[in-house]
Amino acid sequence: MRITLVSVAALLLASVAAVRADEGMWLFSAPPREKLEASYGFKADDAWLNHVMRASVRFDSGGSGSFVSGDGLVITNHHVGLDALQKMSDSRKNFVRDGFYAATSADEAKCLDLELNVLESTEDVTARVNAAVPAGAAGDESAKARRKVFAEIEKESHDKTGLRSDVITLYQGGAYHLYRYKRYTDIRLVFAPEQQAAFFGGDPDNFEYPRYDLDICIFRVYENGQAVHPDHFLKWSVGGVHDGDMVFVSGNPGRTERLFTVAQLEYLRDTALPFTLESLKRRDVLLSSWSARSDENERRAKRTLFSIRNSRKLFDGLLSGLQNPELMDGKEAAEASLRDQLILRPDGKDALAAYRAIASAEKTIGRIYRRLRMLEGARGFTSDSFGIARMLLRAGDERPKPNGERLPEFSDPRRDTLELDLFSEKPIYEDMEILTLGDSLTELTEQLGYDDPTVQAVLDGKSPRARAAELVRGTKVRDVAVRRRLYEGGAAAVAAAQDPMIEVARSIDAESRSLRKTFEAQDEIQQQAQAAIGKARFAVLGTSTYPDATFTLRLAYGAVKGYEENGARVEPLTNMAGLYQRSDDHKDRVPFDLPQRWVDRKGAVDMATPMDFVSTCDIIGGNSGSPTIDRKGEFVGIIFDGDIQSLSSDVAYDEVQSRAVSVHSAAIIEALRKVYGVNALADELVNGHR
Amino acid sequence: MRITLVSVAALLLASVAAVRADEGMWLFSAPPREKLEASYGFKADDAWLNHVMRASVRFDSGGSGSFVSGDGLVITNHHVGLDALQKMSDSRKNFVRDGFYAATSADEAKCLDLELNVLESTEDVTARVNAAVPAGAAGDESAKARRKVFAEIEKESHDKTGLRSDVITLYQGGAYHLYRYKRYTDIRLVFAPEQQAAFFGGDPDNFEYPRYDLDICIFRVYENGQAVHPDHFLKWSVGGVHDGDMVFVSGNPGRTERLFTVAQLEYLRDTALPFTLESLKRRDVLLSSWSARSDENERRAKRTLFSIRNSRKLFDGLLSGLQNPELMDGKEAAEASLRDQLILRPDGKDALAAYRAIASAEKTIGRIYRRLRMLEGARGFTSDSFGIARMLLRAGDERPKPNGERLPEFSDPRRDTLELDLFSEKPIYEDMEILTLGDSLTELTEQLGYDDPTVQAVLDGKSPRARAAELVRGTKVRDVAVRRRLYEGGAAAVAAAQDPMIEVARSIDAESRSLRKTFEAQDEIQQQAQAAIGKARFAVLGTSTYPDATFTLRLAYGAVKGYEENGARVEPLTNMAGLYQRSDDHKDRVPFDLPQRWVDRKGAVDMATPMDFVSTCDIIGGNSGSPTIDRKGEFVGIIFDGDIQSLSSDVAYDEVQSRAVSVHSAAIIEALRKVYGVNALADELVNGHR
Repeated sequence: MRITLVSVAALLLASVAAVRADEGMWLFSAPPREKLEASYGFKADDAWLNHVMRASVRFDSGGSGSFVSGDGLVITNHHVGLDALQKMSDSRKNFVRDGFYAATSADEAKCLDLELNVLESTEDVTARVNAAVPAGAAGDESAKARRKVFAEIEKESHDKTGLRSDVITLYQGGAYHLYRYKRYTDIRLVFAPEQQAAFFGGDPDNFEYPRYDLDICIFRVYENGQAVHPDHFLKWSVGGVHDGDMVFVSGNPGRTERLFTVAQLEYLRDTALPFTLESLKRRDVLLSSWSARSDENERRAKRTLFSIRNSRKLFDGLLSGLQNPELMDGKEAAEASLRDQLILRPDGKDALAAYRAIASAEKTIGRIYRRLRMLEGARGFTSDSFGIARMLLRAGDERPKPNGERLPEFSDPRRDTLELDLFSEKPIYEDMEILTLGDSLTELTEQLGYDDPTVQAVLDGKSPRARAAELVRGTKVRDVAVRRRLYEGGAAAVAAAQDPMIEVARSIDAESRSLRKTFEAQDEIQQQAQAAIGKARFAVLGTSTYPDATFTLRLAYGAVKGYEENGARVEPLTNMAGLYQRSDDHKDRVPFDLPQRWVDRKGAVDMATPMDFVSTCDIIGGNSGSPTIDRKGEFVGIIFDGDIQSLSSDVAYDEVQSRAVSVHSAAIIEALRKVYGVNALADELVNGHR
Repeated sequence: MRITLVSVAALLLASVAAVRADEGMWLFSAPPREKLEASYGFKADDAWLNHVMRASVRFDSGGSGSFVSGDGLVITNHHVGLDALQKMSDSRKNFVRDGFYAATSADEAKCLDLELNVLESTEDVTARVNAAVPAGAAGDESAKARRKVFAEIEKESHDKTGLRSDVITLYQGGAYHLYRYKRYTDIRLVFAPEQQAAFFGGDPDNFEYPRYDLDICIFRVYENGQAVHPDHFLKWSVGGVHDGDMVFVSGNPGRTERLFTVAQLEYLRDTALPFTLESLKRRDVLLSSWSARSDENERRAKRTLFSIRNSRKLFDGLLSGLQNPELMDGKEAAEASLRDQLILRPDGKDALAAYRAIASAEKTIGRIYRRLRMLEGARGFTSDSFGIARMLLRAGDERPKPNGERLPEFSDPRRDTLELDLFSEKPIYEDMEILTLGDSLTELTEQLGYDDPTVQAVLDGKSPRARAAELVRGTKVRDVAVRRRLYEGGAAAVAAAQDPMIEVARSIDAESRSLRKTFEAQDEIQQQAQAAIGKARFAVLGTSTYPDATFTLRLAYGAVKGYEENGARVEPLTNMAGLYQRSDDHKDRVPFDLPQRWVDRKGAVDMATPMDFVSTCDIIGGNSGSPTIDRKGEFVGIIFDGDIQSLSSDVAYDEVQSRAVSVHSAAIIEALRKVYGVNALADELVNGHR
């Protein structure tokens, strides 16, 4: 196969280097100035970039957002805020279902466990990292050395600036940058629509277009008990965008694999994705069926189910892309073409060896993959109780070690984040824990085998479901005071507690850590190999390229633009009339039912108001809640989804049909004023201050 | 492990032989007369047995029922009639959702593809079958010889009597009986409630108790254009049963594995069930998500989704039983104990060797299992179009062969059934075919590997989804006239058609048949081994035992009886007040919403009327629609479910919590009169004639 393609590849040489128009998740420190100017006649000056960067916000829990008022308002997606909304709700007050509005500052409700990061500066630390990693060291030694120097750099920076400091691996290890963030942890809820408006069309419409969602959630950031006044926030564009307008997206794409080798894509296609999808579909069925038994079950499982279905559709789409010979043949051709060029270069030898190293590492990981995911990945122990139990066990073992030798999640700079997580007061439901742990112990038994010694030790002579009930009922880790005591008391206190869930975590810990070690060693081999390929690729491509996504701030650009699907044209903008129409078409039934407020105030709404729109910007998960911005740097919308064709964006950008979906800025103001009657909030957004 | 149990087993000797009280799916030709008399003081005389046998009806599509009027009314479950209801419905008339009632004979609607069987007689043909199978022949030779003699016996009987004649393997091959059935194929629909009443509580309440379902469907059987007047039908008991009453169930339990060896149970637990469940959950998610996109999708997928969810819950329950060390340890102890006795017997040697043969056969099957299921099991080609295409392809190849050498589904006696299926006018939906075929080709690619030559040949250079669309759009087999032409024209016509779906079936046919051959050879080894164990077991147990279920008529017995669950008592009967209450508790939301008729006529209903009830009768899938009968041989209810604890009944009966669930005869009359206002039908049931 590959031999044929090498000869074809000569025709494709240009395509190896070519970043297609509108492709890319660019570093703010290396924006595609020439492309922007050539494609759109746009000059990205430093002031514009700095302003957008500092008005952008990262939700540490996995999303993006932006400051949209001088009095600290941050807007993100409802589905990014959902975790906070759910933690605030209980069986009496359901803010997820009913929405939320704080009419006065006093009503603004403090969120549990929410951490926001604003990028203040970045610094290239590649030389220092590389100097600290001994040349030719074995995989795990290199990983250890790199982890150590990361921890040193992060600690130094944190000590000096007080800012959250993370060393980020870019270009597959071609570069390392230190990112410094201002951390905010006092985040208060100001406004959320009903989930039914935010996620209108539910799972069936998720990743589809046309769409009619008001997927927003508005917070206010506090510090020292006062609303903050950020130096930079995005001015609101009342008119917003039209068909053909140029737009930008500033946000934190989570992860892409655009530079993955064919061996890595095959590993994804043949091993990782099928195994992950199997688990997601299994949990979807489990929780859907449990949710249907009562309203309270449904409320408890809702957020988890949402995230499962979202991932499931996403991975299904990605797998579909990887099973498409067009995509894979293209990747094979591009790889063959790059290799052909590497053969001709004196510095190409390492990169060519790197391809072989990656293929071999993937094989090694493939052999342990199942046990790795079931044990270290805790897929066999799905429950918050187990997660906490393991965190306590490992905190006891890790914290006495020198900072650089710890598992990274226990390093000093991540301590605040760890403790925020560990001491969270968020509710954990015993019945749901028994359900999910019971099912995942069943899966553990299926995957590793009934007679497997680890399984036998975990089950202790009981059936998976009976054992789950015993463990969940027996553990004390759902009590935050107990957690604190065991965390403070260290390994001795943890051992003395004889907590059954902690003891289960202990019983698999040696094997689990050893699997992780093997994985990390192979991962390190791959990182080094990718760095070698990355460097070689740089040598060929120059600086005309962007690194894979790393859940750090990136700039994407493109245009508001429709597309063709099954021979029909899909228009780029929807409007409010379309929302009411789609609900009518489904007889207002779940999940196409409109919240009562939308029904009641239908007469007041201007039906021509734009609702959602698509653009060619290159986004991926993690971009949720990113502001869509116009040339003037104004807020014209908020990213909340990609269409179905964008689901293989993880590995390849496609400008033909792949689109980013935003809520239009005009829809937000129209809804706030006409449907929710919250003019004070609409005024603050439009005016930029209270 | 086993060594310990052998010593423990001495204590358990009695339990090997003991059939627990109320256990058993007994042959009408060998009823448990002594047990019935000893436990309940009931004398089962021949007239009573003959009457019940001939009033019982089998739905060839997979259910049970009974004649309940001298003018040919047959009652079964709504979920047994569902296939017929759905085939009658279209986008304008939705009988599944809205129910059906034929006020006059002219309105009685003829069902597509429905075949009913009434057992007329049985005959022991063990000696003839065994004589025809050469001693010591290889597995596949024996299978062939047995298939040949089956076909001969069936053909002789069919030629002589005109009755459907099936040779049934009982006691794992310990005995072979010829079953002769009167076949009815002109079945007309008389009454069905709304599915919402039949399946109130939906998937969440499925296999649960207490229940409130009116899971019935009433047909009338015609012959030569006239309603039949059966010699035997069950008299309706208006008062029905009360707590503690003795009851019988006469129906066709589909399949049990009560005599499976430990090796076979391990194979189920470790190989067959996890693989099957993975597929069911995958398809559940696929069709749930598609159904949610429009009402028409939901209608199209409803029956399939129902059957997927039903099987999924059932197999989850069975797997849970098999992963329970209590059950497995019990099975191991019983097996060890039987082996201990076999060692002491001169005729025990073969049976002991048989245990080893079974374990070895399971290993061989385990090695091909995945390919077998994906190809010959057609799990990789889930669509009606593929099923028809393969049937046409194989009919062309098989029909010219001598009867005894054909694949059994193409033998002469099964010809009518095959043609009924092949020429069915039931609607097949192109969009749903593309959806399910696309997903199952994706699964084929995952399971066998992207680079597998069979997969590559099937996909023909396209992605699974694109290939599915191409095949489904390209095939002509959804046109019944085309099917007829190709079936009549034989292999030459089939080849000349160059139909893409048939050609795909052809491309896998050699491998698929070879997998089937390997499987059948190993299956035959197991059958022989099971026969050896079965005979040895008979030698130990005498005639005090019943054979595993074979979807043939059986008699179960027991009592109306509640049970304890999580420390609370569950009463055996529910009533109509409970139905309204459960709907209220769920705010009348799906699937706890009441049909409008039930809401409107609430005032007329006697709330104290019994609704559903549980009994200790030993049932399993296939018993759906079986009449529950009292001592007098009267109809007191209709089986529609088992509780959650009954889900491991496949391998072991449990009298403590396992229960069979029936609709009460009084509920049916009350609903027909007060809710549906169909007094003529109620009168016919109560009076036994029009």
